[in-house]
Amino acid sequence: MIESAAYDGQTLVEEFVRSHFIADNPLVTEAVRRMMAAGGKRIRPQLTLLAAEVVGAQPAEHLELAAYMELIHVATLIHDDVVDRADTRRGVNATAVDYGNRISVLAGDYLFAWIFRNVTARYPAPIPHILSATLAEICAGEVLQLRALGDVALTLTDYLEIVGKKTASLFAASAECGAIVGGASAEQRTALRDFGRDYGIAFQMKDDLLDMTADAERLGKPAGNDLRERKVTIPLIFALQRADRGFRDSVERFFTRGDDAQLERIVEGVTACAALQATRDRIEHYARRASRSLSGMRDGAAHRSLIEMAASLVEEI
Amino acid sequence: MIESAAYDGQTLVEEFVRSHFIADNPLVTEAVRRMMAAGGKRIRPQLTLLAAEVVGAQPAEHLELAAYMELIHVATLIHDDVVDRADTRRGVNATAVDYGNRISVLAGDYLFAWIFRNVTARYPAPIPHILSATLAEICAGEVLQLRALGDVALTLTDYLEIVGKKTASLFAASAECGAIVGGASAEQRTALRDFGRDYGIAFQMKDDLLDMTADAERLGKPAGNDLRERKVTIPLIFALQRADRGFRDSVERFFTRGDDAQLERIVEGVTACAALQATRDRIEHYARRASRSLSGMRDGAAHRSLIEMAASLVEEI
Repeated sequence: MIESAAYDGQTLVEEFVRSHFIADNPLVTEAVRRMMAAGGKRIRPQLTLLAAEVVGAQPAEHLELAAYMELIHVATLIHDDVVDRADTRRGVNATAVDYGNRISVLAGDYLFAWIFRNVTARYPAPIPHILSATLAEICAGEVLQLRALGDVALTLTDYLEIVGKKTASLFAASAECGAIVGGASAEQRTALRDFGRDYGIAFQMKDDLLDMTADAERLGKPAGNDLRERKVTIPLIFALQRADRGFRDSVERFFTRGDDAQLERIVEGVTACAALQATRDRIEHYARRASRSLSGMRDGAAHRSLIEMAASLVEEI
Repeated sequence: MIESAAYDGQTLVEEFVRSHFIADNPLVTEAVRRMMAAGGKRIRPQLTLLAAEVVGAQPAEHLELAAYMELIHVATLIHDDVVDRADTRRGVNATAVDYGNRISVLAGDYLFAWIFRNVTARYPAPIPHILSATLAEICAGEVLQLRALGDVALTLTDYLEIVGKKTASLFAASAECGAIVGGASAEQRTALRDFGRDYGIAFQMKDDLLDMTADAERLGKPAGNDLRERKVTIPLIFALQRADRGFRDSVERFFTRGDDAQLERIVEGVTACAALQATRDRIEHYARRASRSLSGMRDGAAHRSLIEMAASLVEEI
């Protein structure tokens, strides 16, 4: 059942974007197309469709709303492409084309505006408000993350605030909006929103864990990429709590001077201590809490798919 | 009367922003504050307030909506600050700080999201839709402008499409939204929207004219700044239509190689021919058409202020 739901959601969202998103300008269309082609499991729209289905609606009727959830994510990815001079000096994104920044900004802005233009025309309150409040949360989370770069004193509480805003807020909104258009009761809406938020936190933690442990081929990017970008993620926070002064010093030196020889040693340091297991425990905690949010709901295919999605987060970690 | 309306609108909008816009993050608050402090005549909120007043409402009740019109403009200015590596190489924005791009993108995004979050919570349809559709138009216009950089074949029709989208759309929306919240009839709403659009076109043309003619001190930036950024504006379009092959060649060479010695000669070439007068004629045409849009409206202080605003566009040019 989860196989077919996943397949439908993914294919149909992509088809929607292909047929409906045509910007006046080919540069914008190209930026969106390229970012969509870069992959992604389209989990956000899947949450919207399953949330609508679990409260008794026909998911096929809410494909458009589901697509907007993915497109908000795509727009933030396009803006993430904007680089600083510092980045190009440090070799990150060195291949960025000269006029790439300005196009990325405008393409992302156009996409945000296009989404809100359509959503305000087609969906009643509180959908447009939820989406704009979510975008504000995502931005606030990204600013917090930017300020926290290279901060070895970052706590788990700080990390959870960042992740809750930059990642989990859109998962929560995706599930909540699906529930709303599906005709959910107030309790169902809250339950699905809670599911989305906890799922999103566990999802980001898993992403951060894999960045530390997975090989480059499986991840599509080199391991330790977050470290290279000076991001302090949950496995590193746990490692810094557990490791000795020498480890902390080497992390601080790496964040200050950034040579790749040290990077490998830091990844080894994180994987050698109990930090990875502590991270796995947190992932399991949030995945379980997500499932528990749905305990009051009727069993059925969509319900099982959601429970299965949460369960799959604790696999292969 | 226009004096007091202008003063009130400006002061009160700034006061609203000071007291209501507090982002979680000081970097975002600072980016907005700095852009507000850079000046501006707050014409967009003034249009909103006068449009509300001219249809019989109390402008003081619509200050918040007026402030959002200015803030949409401010957010686009923050995103305009994003620079490319090409710019920094060519000396434009060379003082941009290293992490400026990313902060500019996030601050602008946060501001857009914050505006829409508030507008969707406080204003009924069609206000949120008009604002998001307007933002889409602004972005589309800016992408068109980006593609037209250095294009000596740009026509007046192309220019009008760019200006209509990137500048006039927000003036039109500012007046239209003021009319809507003020309780305008359908005819009044259309008339005020038309006024805003034509006013906006004339406003941008005047800006483009002054960039060619005014001295640096009055303009706050060196004359010929648009040329330096490879923008093809209305005085240059008229000059290219009228000038000889040699002038066109020198413009093309300047856009390709960009040495400042040629810049002065091009500015002289534009000001020496009939291009400036042709530009003045177009400004007058749109300013007059703006005023004519309001001919069916009752005379009164707000009506006179709007007519006076349009008339002031043809002064000192």
